[in-house]
Amino acid sequence: MNEFALIEKYFTWKNSNLNGLGVGDDCALIVANNQQLAVTVDTLIEGVHFPVNTTPQDIAYKALAVNLSDLAAMGAMPWYFSLALTLPSIDEQWLKGFSQSLKALAEQHNIYLIGGDTTKGALSITINATGTLTKDQALLRSGAKVGDYVFVSNTLGDAALAWWQIQRQQVPSISLLAQFNCPQPQVKLGQSLLGIASSCIDISDGLEQDLSHILTHSKVGASIDVNALPLSAEVAAHIANTQDWCVAVSGGDDYELCFTAPKMQMDAIQIIEKKLHMVITKIGVITDERGLEIKGLDGNCQSYRHF
Amino acid sequence: MNEFALIEKYFTWKNSNLNGLGVGDDCALIVANNQQLAVTVDTLIEGVHFPVNTTPQDIAYKALAVNLSDLAAMGAMPWYFSLALTLPSIDEQWLKGFSQSLKALAEQHNIYLIGGDTTKGALSITINATGTLTKDQALLRSGAKVGDYVFVSNTLGDAALAWWQIQRQQVPSISLLAQFNCPQPQVKLGQSLLGIASSCIDISDGLEQDLSHILTHSKVGASIDVNALPLSAEVAAHIANTQDWCVAVSGGDDYELCFTAPKMQMDAIQIIEKKLHMVITKIGVITDERGLEIKGLDGNCQSYRHF
Repeated sequence: MNEFALIEKYFTWKNSNLNGLGVGDDCALIVANNQQLAVTVDTLIEGVHFPVNTTPQDIAYKALAVNLSDLAAMGAMPWYFSLALTLPSIDEQWLKGFSQSLKALAEQHNIYLIGGDTTKGALSITINATGTLTKDQALLRSGAKVGDYVFVSNTLGDAALAWWQIQRQQVPSISLLAQFNCPQPQVKLGQSLLGIASSCIDISDGLEQDLSHILTHSKVGASIDVNALPLSAEVAAHIANTQDWCVAVSGGDDYELCFTAPKMQMDAIQIIEKKLHMVITKIGVITDERGLEIKGLDGNCQSYRHF
Repeated sequence: MNEFALIEKYFTWKNSNLNGLGVGDDCALIVANNQQLAVTVDTLIEGVHFPVNTTPQDIAYKALAVNLSDLAAMGAMPWYFSLALTLPSIDEQWLKGFSQSLKALAEQHNIYLIGGDTTKGALSITINATGTLTKDQALLRSGAKVGDYVFVSNTLGDAALAWWQIQRQQVPSISLLAQFNCPQPQVKLGQSLLGIASSCIDISDGLEQDLSHILTHSKVGASIDVNALPLSAEVAAHIANTQDWCVAVSGGDDYELCFTAPKMQMDAIQIIEKKLHMVITKIGVITDERGLEIKGLDGNCQSYRHF
């Protein structure tokens, strides 16, 4: 049983008064007057989501960034967050680094820490973030239409390659490590895509798995081409050497956005690219044949599984 | 360094745009139009907040109940919650019990599960709950005035006595265990106290420590009398046998409310008692001498420390 089946089976029940989108997208949506609240929660556990001995700065950054990335995937504007911090002991040096980094990222995205809980135990961090949206504007996973193009932001596989190297006792380059430890949540991109994208998700569990969520929720298929995937020079070299397309196709932790949009929005997307100084790449098209066709991929890749 | 100093030192920074009450009360308050949101988060860790081998039903109940208790302490009406669940492995039998119990308590208090995250690791549960309040109505820790009476709901020390017995390989009675595993969050009492109580807190870390928070935030003192504390027959017998007043004075996990109110509200409080079929006991008075005087207590008690 995977995470999604688990949620479906045990944590989906009828909430007659809940006017929104419950369990099953990047964020839950709750209607509050003419606004919507987008709410997301993510837990990071030492040894699972970051290596033992990751700096407190990088841990704090990532814990907040992954939540901001979920808000980004809905197009929401960050509002506030709470922090549940479990620590084996109080280490002031560690806390200083953690809080400075948390504050810096929070201020960068104008999101406010409103409260939290501290407990003693194995190191883990749960952040719950809330953003706002104009009603009915959210970027959902369910809006992709046949003929829409499929896009991703920036490059794919950098974080996965860093992790691949760490597991083999290799030292990743600074730029790969930065992508692994300090992924840039695409908050501005998400908000810019409101009214333009037909569906959106952040690539935290790997492109193949996350794009498949869009396909399932939208009841469509897609065809993408590995040769169209945007790659950094290091990931391109790794693939050339190893034929290991999996870092780009199914490697997690990229926190880029994957979205779909009708062809007529190509101009608008180019304007966003220029305005945000980023690269957005068309990697494929939505089809009416269910499932995800990945042209040029030999064999299978295993996307991230929560269990 | 205790939890409160830690929060003050590392997680309190100027949030210029945050129109509300940040870190430092039972819930954070956020202004949203004419309403306030009360937000709280609590983590429960196996072996710390509940014994290993506690049933999944009791774990789920407690994880949500402690958050409902924080909402109760502000007088907020429960609205929605998210769940971050960390599990060592997927055990369907366990999940079934957990989700049934969570759902039952959620439905009882009309609070909606809107989303969450599941991760693999040592068993822990973080719940983030949001409630609503009319603006400026919240029961704060900071409103106690000299001359106000100090009250507590129901009885004190039952959960602490259960824990005391468990640690000594004794088997607590069903009623003590129920108080330990299934504390009744005083949601209706909290809402009933709006406009009546001058300050309020839930007794999760022990009366002495939690009442002291009211005193600190309100810049007052208090004098209470151990002989006035409401005790169950079992706790009274335990104290008679051992002179161990600490279970009632500083034992945590009661999740009753401690509040202050001016003398003129005595009639209103008696009406609430009858309406809610509960006992509310006056245990002391707010004074202008700083600190908490506990009459009849020989020696010191150690309240719960998060670290």
